[in-house]
Amino acid sequence: MLIVRFLDEKGRECYGHNFRDGHAMLLEGHLFQGLQETGIRVSVKKLLAPLQPVAILCIGLNYRKHAVETGIKIPEYPVLFMKNPSAVADPGDPIVLPKVCVNPPQVDYEAELVAVIGKPARNVSAAKALEYVLGYTAGNDVSARWWQQHAGASQWIRGKSFDTFCPLGPELVTTDEIPDPQNLQLRCILNNEVMQDGNTSDMIFSVAQLIAFLSEGTTLLPGTIILTGTPSGVGFVRQPPVFLKAGDVVSIEVEGIGTLTNPLVEEE
Amino acid sequence: MLIVRFLDEKGRECYGHNFRDGHAMLLEGHLFQGLQETGIRVSVKKLLAPLQPVAILCIGLNYRKHAVETGIKIPEYPVLFMKNPSAVADPGDPIVLPKVCVNPPQVDYEAELVAVIGKPARNVSAAKALEYVLGYTAGNDVSARWWQQHAGASQWIRGKSFDTFCPLGPELVTTDEIPDPQNLQLRCILNNEVMQDGNTSDMIFSVAQLIAFLSEGTTLLPGTIILTGTPSGVGFVRQPPVFLKAGDVVSIEVEGIGTLTNPLVEEE
Repeated sequence: MLIVRFLDEKGRECYGHNFRDGHAMLLEGHLFQGLQETGIRVSVKKLLAPLQPVAILCIGLNYRKHAVETGIKIPEYPVLFMKNPSAVADPGDPIVLPKVCVNPPQVDYEAELVAVIGKPARNVSAAKALEYVLGYTAGNDVSARWWQQHAGASQWIRGKSFDTFCPLGPELVTTDEIPDPQNLQLRCILNNEVMQDGNTSDMIFSVAQLIAFLSEGTTLLPGTIILTGTPSGVGFVRQPPVFLKAGDVVSIEVEGIGTLTNPLVEEE
Repeated sequence: MLIVRFLDEKGRECYGHNFRDGHAMLLEGHLFQGLQETGIRVSVKKLLAPLQPVAILCIGLNYRKHAVETGIKIPEYPVLFMKNPSAVADPGDPIVLPKVCVNPPQVDYEAELVAVIGKPARNVSAAKALEYVLGYTAGNDVSARWWQQHAGASQWIRGKSFDTFCPLGPELVTTDEIPDPQNLQLRCILNNEVMQDGNTSDMIFSVAQLIAFLSEGTTLLPGTIILTGTPSGVGFVRQPPVFLKAGDVVSIEVEGIGTLTNPLVEEE
């Protein structure tokens, strides 16, 4: 099932599926306890990110070609960082370039496959890990490179957690539709130009291996999302570098999930 | 007011104040929208962490003497990392040493003053920052040093986010009781031995400066907590190193807030 979260005409937050022509089949219930058909087709006023995550776990340097392009050595363990949950942006909503990220220009895109944890996972083996995944969506791990590199002791979070730096969506695709998350094409398109074009088969650590690693001694609660890393082609390693600017439009396409598009604006 | 969150005799989650002799004055309402007196004194079955945070922001190397003891240079900006919200532990509950943190021994204590954000803060000046703080509590930024240092690209989060690695409490003390957060003694006591004994006046970045920095272009939602760094005396830099082991009891004391005590156990 391809699930959307949205506001209806009365501003109520709803879940639905079979989204097309501005309408969706309304679902009732709870995303993690179960959604049921209502048979009612309703108008979608505004698409929302498929969920408000309880925690945003992010994996760095998880595609071989991207690790190579950054010049950082292939990691022995998954590289874990986080984003502040307040960074989530809805499909179509602007990514806001913060004032403190304008000089020097530094804001970059990262196309990512996002796994959504559906039930509590702790000390889960890689063989069973995908049983804990409710589904997948697309994400853009928007990154302010100067802050990522310079904000103190090389910790990345400050540059990764500005408001709107985590667009998610447009749909949450349940695992029955994506039996193998390790063979999906994903792309980033900036103003009609393809900037990233990779496949999840290039991941150093598979989604299942990531969940096994992240759940060691640690509970991944329902609503935890994992941004699983980005393929090669990010802006800051290009010659000359490419950074996002007001007026740009950036899209993340993940095979089987759809296209997550956001325009860029400057902070007022 | 000194606020406790607790389970009552029927297992209901409650807020109260004037906690002593296993009883508290029941408060009703919402922690962020406002708690009101009920005049009813109730039995406290189990103390809980004062809140389940929406985000746990942590500051590294924020005490001059601690920065010096680690050998890392004094940071130019606050060093931000995060912990997974599922890491919270209640006062009195065991800190569990994960199997993957036993060999080599590595689990360390860090006594911290914790600021609790009470209303949305974004682009807040240091002069006004404390208006966004609901109150303070004590925290233990439990840290698995091997994972902190080796889990990939020097990102600290994996070693900071194991379950129970964020004890909080025992009380949330509202800001009217602590007009100046920059003059509080804080200590870590391990099995009756004082391991850390510092004062928040030694902070490199004050609580107000941290909120100003963290809120630049970034919304700090109500329920966001900020662990503001730890004074000198942590275990891993001692000669010989001191690490937590099963049977230990570790207490964090913060002046005006109380004592947060947790025993250590091994993961089963």
